[in-house]
Amino acid sequence: MLHPVVLSGGSGSRLWPLSRQNQPKQFLTLIGDHSLFQETILRASALPDAGAPVTVCAEDHRFMVGEQLQEIDVANGAIILEPIARNTAPAIALAALHLVAQEPDATMLVLPADHLIEDVQAFREAVARASTLAAQDWLVTFGIEPDYPETGYGYIARGDALDGAGYRVARFVEKPDLATAERYLAEGTYAWNSGMFLFKAQRYLDELTRLAPAIVEAARAAYSQAQTDLDFIRLGKDAFAASPNDSIDYALMEKTEHAAVVPVSCGWSDIGSWSSLWSVAQRDDDGNRYEGDVISVDTRDSLVRASDRRMIATIGVEDLVIVDTPDATLVARKDRVQDVKTIVDKLKQAGRQEHLFHRKVYRPWGNYDSIDMGDRFQVKRIVVKPGAALSLQKHHKRAEHWIVVSGVAEVTCDDKVFELRENQSTYIPLGSVHRLRNRGTQPVELIEVQSGSYLGEDDIVRLEDVYGRS
Amino acid sequence: MLHPVVLSGGSGSRLWPLSRQNQPKQFLTLIGDHSLFQETILRASALPDAGAPVTVCAEDHRFMVGEQLQEIDVANGAIILEPIARNTAPAIALAALHLVAQEPDATMLVLPADHLIEDVQAFREAVARASTLAAQDWLVTFGIEPDYPETGYGYIARGDALDGAGYRVARFVEKPDLATAERYLAEGTYAWNSGMFLFKAQRYLDELTRLAPAIVEAARAAYSQAQTDLDFIRLGKDAFAASPNDSIDYALMEKTEHAAVVPVSCGWSDIGSWSSLWSVAQRDDDGNRYEGDVISVDTRDSLVRASDRRMIATIGVEDLVIVDTPDATLVARKDRVQDVKTIVDKLKQAGRQEHLFHRKVYRPWGNYDSIDMGDRFQVKRIVVKPGAALSLQKHHKRAEHWIVVSGVAEVTCDDKVFELRENQSTYIPLGSVHRLRNRGTQPVELIEVQSGSYLGEDDIVRLEDVYGRS
Repeated sequence: MLHPVVLSGGSGSRLWPLSRQNQPKQFLTLIGDHSLFQETILRASALPDAGAPVTVCAEDHRFMVGEQLQEIDVANGAIILEPIARNTAPAIALAALHLVAQEPDATMLVLPADHLIEDVQAFREAVARASTLAAQDWLVTFGIEPDYPETGYGYIARGDALDGAGYRVARFVEKPDLATAERYLAEGTYAWNSGMFLFKAQRYLDELTRLAPAIVEAARAAYSQAQTDLDFIRLGKDAFAASPNDSIDYALMEKTEHAAVVPVSCGWSDIGSWSSLWSVAQRDDDGNRYEGDVISVDTRDSLVRASDRRMIATIGVEDLVIVDTPDATLVARKDRVQDVKTIVDKLKQAGRQEHLFHRKVYRPWGNYDSIDMGDRFQVKRIVVKPGAALSLQKHHKRAEHWIVVSGVAEVTCDDKVFELRENQSTYIPLGSVHRLRNRGTQPVELIEVQSGSYLGEDDIVRLEDVYGRS
Repeated sequence: MLHPVVLSGGSGSRLWPLSRQNQPKQFLTLIGDHSLFQETILRASALPDAGAPVTVCAEDHRFMVGEQLQEIDVANGAIILEPIARNTAPAIALAALHLVAQEPDATMLVLPADHLIEDVQAFREAVARASTLAAQDWLVTFGIEPDYPETGYGYIARGDALDGAGYRVARFVEKPDLATAERYLAEGTYAWNSGMFLFKAQRYLDELTRLAPAIVEAARAAYSQAQTDLDFIRLGKDAFAASPNDSIDYALMEKTEHAAVVPVSCGWSDIGSWSSLWSVAQRDDDGNRYEGDVISVDTRDSLVRASDRRMIATIGVEDLVIVDTPDATLVARKDRVQDVKTIVDKLKQAGRQEHLFHRKVYRPWGNYDSIDMGDRFQVKRIVVKPGAALSLQKHHKRAEHWIVVSGVAEVTCDDKVFELRENQSTYIPLGSVHRLRNRGTQPVELIEVQSGSYLGEDDIVRLEDVYGRS
């Protein structure tokens, strides 16, 4: 069995305003019908002899991971919550510990959740070659065969051929300048460092114990405190925090004698910016990629994404990236999109929220969208998933009016419990203990009108919560 | 007495998406605190010996005119509703007939509602000179002294000097090519045709009767059927429709022997496009004009307008116009903004509404904004002005939930009449006869959630209406 391990890291600033801290790149649907995370899980699940994919993700993203896994309906393995971000070497160690506990000679395929792979057959063939090498105790990295002299990636130089399946790693090299990158491309023995790996889990742990023992020690201590919470595996935070913050490349691959590289050309992209999304997306004859409601005149080589219920019109522009969301629109020259991080920094400095959250916020029970706001009131559209329930709660500063517009809600308000159907409403007085639940099979949608002197999300007292948040 | 007559025409496509058919340019606040229409009224009212300004506007814009006049709180004269658009010669004839009926030797100053004038003192001095000539029975037009070779305007060539106050008109010339415009500028005897006029009302009618009798005949017939409706003068539609569709320039000024021109340099602009707004607006050191919530990096010579509750971020762009509204965003190269009309044509052809209405719709009683919409429901934020009332009405296909978020509403629902205050709600069942009224001194704001199988604005039976709409 091959055990896919999907690393769902990433802070979510490079594709702002679509990516936000609470919804980074891997959870966005950028190409096709699924998010990059979902595509990664689906691709891994379909490999021959694949076990259920294990996901390692941040605590804050657990409900989004859960929801996205539910949507694609594949057998999924554990969801390991990183108590704190410590880079890839410790994260992979957690997954390795989890796998060997169940299957001592497990082989693991480590995949970042936010990469695009267009040629799945080539990917599968590379995985097969890597499996051969892993069986011989090699620690295998996948090297993407470059098709242009990219200066934004690290490179792997290949050494001796191994058994027709790959090569010894000669050395890892940092991001080169353009002249060096051109030379690498011409020489044909260099590949991009993709962040995908394949090895026996125990082999990884053993070699890491030799080269970076503090990482394994911290991971082991954290894993020994594992608790299962719903679908999630929750670990010891302080124990894990003691780990050095290191990448697998730095802690292990660059140091071990047992590194192998399997070159692959599989239409890979890490979609590291809006311009790289444009370059991998299908485009029209004028070089444009449009998503949503776009009307254009004389527009060329641009990426334009409209958001729901809004249109974008363009006239006479070229080489632009225009990305619209409910609360923010980006208009950038395509060769300047790396400066999105400057915008995100400005938002941070100004104490704003547009880099942290979308207007629409995902919760374990569904989502809400703040559709209007004014002095002393706020209007939200709330969706509760079938079978889900908000916490039993109360507010000190606001009353709420609920109008159900679809589905059947079960409402608790102090000592009363009753059903509310489409076109029915109720009033939740300030201070009353209330809960919203969906016992049906269809989503409940309702409009909530909040009225009060303070309407912040932090005015909530949770008395009971099925998601462990009280 | 000098009687200002403000012509509030214009279809509203050149400043799309901010201007729409139901809210053309003159009603927008583009520079400063007031709309161009309000600025025009205020400027005219402040002239020495000015009478209350008479407004001539389209039927569809009457409530917007009424509301904008109310906001600036100046004495206003008649609001004459054009039953149908017939261009400026007939519109001015209506105003002239109205004025001579009250003051046979009235002098009128005709002003388009959608022009910007920055140097009010220069304008006032020109009006004084023009008044001198009008007293001598000249039909005076104001000629803007050109400061660059504009090819988008008609020009007026001056002839003999008249009494130090102005010149005979030698001839009117069509929009020139660039070489001709440059020659006009060099010669110094040509001025832009501004569309502003000053003459005795009776003189205008007499000369128009001689040169274009059918226009005066139609205007007179329409005016003879005048009815006063609230603040508005409503005329005979069929009678007015019989008028030729002609501009004052073509029907009168280009033909009469009695045309004079008063040159003026008063910081005039007709704001005929987004680029002309940019060129008259105050800009920062990088040549940018920002309105609303804009964050930018390396941006130059651009006009960026964000809309309420939304931000715009720009990176590395120059010479762009970016205009955001709740339902549509325009991104155009600044020298291509004339193609906004191409976008508007595309919207028309597609049977869409974004060129007709804003998401926020003005009514005589206030306004509403469709803040959310889904299958079988719609959410509106409704504002009712103090003293105003919606019609007594019912709907066949929808029920409504009302939650008051500020002010005190008086609600009629079938045989009950009751007050609703902040944080109170009520339910209007399908088919019930209802009305919303504001008897207070503060605006009433409420959230309306509509629920039903059809939610179009045309599902309304008006049983009674204070604005003559039932």
